[in-house]
Amino acid sequence: MLRTVHVGLGTIGQLCLRAAANRPGIRIVGAIDPHPDLVGRDAGTLAGLGRPLGLRVEPDWTGVPEADVAIVCTTSRLVDLREPIGAALARGLDVVSTCEELVAPPIDSPEAQELDGLARRAGRSVLGAGVNPGFVMDALPLVLSAAMLDLEAVRVRRVVDVRTRRPQLAAKTGVGLTPAEFETRLMRGEVGHVGLAASARLLAAGLGWEIETLGEAVRPLPRADGRCSGVHQELRALVGGVPRIVLELTIAEAVAAPGDTIWLDGTPPLEWRITPATPGEEATCALVVNVALGLAALPAGLRTMVDLVPLRYRERR
Amino acid sequence: MLRTVHVGLGTIGQLCLRAAANRPGIRIVGAIDPHPDLVGRDAGTLAGLGRPLGLRVEPDWTGVPEADVAIVCTTSRLVDLREPIGAALARGLDVVSTCEELVAPPIDSPEAQELDGLARRAGRSVLGAGVNPGFVMDALPLVLSAAMLDLEAVRVRRVVDVRTRRPQLAAKTGVGLTPAEFETRLMRGEVGHVGLAASARLLAAGLGWEIETLGEAVRPLPRADGRCSGVHQELRALVGGVPRIVLELTIAEAVAAPGDTIWLDGTPPLEWRITPATPGEEATCALVVNVALGLAALPAGLRTMVDLVPLRYRERR
Repeated sequence: MLRTVHVGLGTIGQLCLRAAANRPGIRIVGAIDPHPDLVGRDAGTLAGLGRPLGLRVEPDWTGVPEADVAIVCTTSRLVDLREPIGAALARGLDVVSTCEELVAPPIDSPEAQELDGLARRAGRSVLGAGVNPGFVMDALPLVLSAAMLDLEAVRVRRVVDVRTRRPQLAAKTGVGLTPAEFETRLMRGEVGHVGLAASARLLAAGLGWEIETLGEAVRPLPRADGRCSGVHQELRALVGGVPRIVLELTIAEAVAAPGDTIWLDGTPPLEWRITPATPGEEATCALVVNVALGLAALPAGLRTMVDLVPLRYRERR
Repeated sequence: MLRTVHVGLGTIGQLCLRAAANRPGIRIVGAIDPHPDLVGRDAGTLAGLGRPLGLRVEPDWTGVPEADVAIVCTTSRLVDLREPIGAALARGLDVVSTCEELVAPPIDSPEAQELDGLARRAGRSVLGAGVNPGFVMDALPLVLSAAMLDLEAVRVRRVVDVRTRRPQLAAKTGVGLTPAEFETRLMRGEVGHVGLAASARLLAAGLGWEIETLGEAVRPLPRADGRCSGVHQELRALVGGVPRIVLELTIAEAVAAPGDTIWLDGTPPLEWRITPATPGEEATCALVVNVALGLAALPAGLRTMVDLVPLRYRERR
């Protein structure tokens, strides 16, 4: 049995806990969140499991028993991960986190270097996982590229109907804002998906490509009432002077053709598609749980999804 | 640079050599085939590279320089691999082979045990790769399953237009035979795709499932002139009393809807599709080359594609 401790019990943290509770082979031994509304509640009841787990939410690690993996869902920002990840590593646990910035941390940043050092000294691994970034636009295209003789470019289009997702995502994607409000919040970094650049970095790392220029455009999508229905983002990464990575993401109300499409340009040209798009919250929690069950095999340090997809197209120059 | 030696220069062996010659990061240092029509010819010209490689086809390993990986395309049968793989391991090379029976060798068979022992003693790895078995019906569904909270069943349908493939495949799939001829050759094991059972074994190994019963049905498909247009095969594997692996393969002339479709039943239900089907020969050679470039990271021994897809759904019971 894999013993998990769940740190951070917001929406995604609760969904991950529920996923772990339902998976044969996992035993949840700890649930941690200092929020006063959560401390003391039964973790299973809180997470909507439909039954109590007999496990109280604790405000910190005091009294949490020995375990194998910490599942950390506290933050989207790398700088805020030092404390929860440090605490888990100090107790000898591997760590999986849904933190978007952890999925492809700029490897030279002081935050990434510090986490890597902590993990190596603890002899454990730390990895960021999720559906996007982490799977649909990076890990999965990498695996599909293994069937390519010659890979010119990777293009991914993800079109998500925001009404099928958790309510927080509508706010993140600017649904209902005026165009002016959208603009203001965009400047403040409050709307838009963080993760396309992370996906591009994972793809480049996996394929052995060096990105020269990385450009991203974000624009609101219009609605009949003049407000925004969501967001459209497009990233283009130049490798050798040509756009070899193109990632396009639409998250909006009433999208015309929801789905994920992965094009691999080259020989043979390949186009894989799923309709509608891979469900975001469910897939993210599934990835966290599945990665947790395989984490022990990874070498110690700060790892990425690229380490989990050795089957991929490779160029060495 | 990865240095490769190509052993067996039939159709697939030539395609693999061409794929390696065109890949940045690979240098071909040896080409071996004892067939009198091939010995002495330039490997590049023979393989249709459009330019000579300046490398003669040799009848055996004599004079072949130091190298990293042997790409063995001599046979579809495990019993015939002892000699070519043994020779490569003895010289300190890792081995990738297109031998279908190597993709998921019955691990307790004497042949598999012997290859595993040879590889371990040499400190090298041996792996069977290809599009089917090896990718579309096993490695790829395994990776897609990583996005599943709960996986009830894996179903794959591959529908191939035989006219898009190498001529040998039409013979293997009984195109043009009378139904009686088909029946006779089926009994002799001369028609039909070997590999569905291998894919089922890989899936089960990767998912932690134990197959109780494995049933496979093979039937010829009819053509207007009363002869066979190809073959339809279906495999059903029972796990816990229910069919959790269903693999369906059609290889025929004038198929209605060529394509590969992967269904993952459970939560969330997923359906990934490519139309037409992943090109067989090109993808097989691509997989061989891409696997070769990543082989050094695997532990010594007889490996399978499951080792290359640590990102997957996992159950422990």
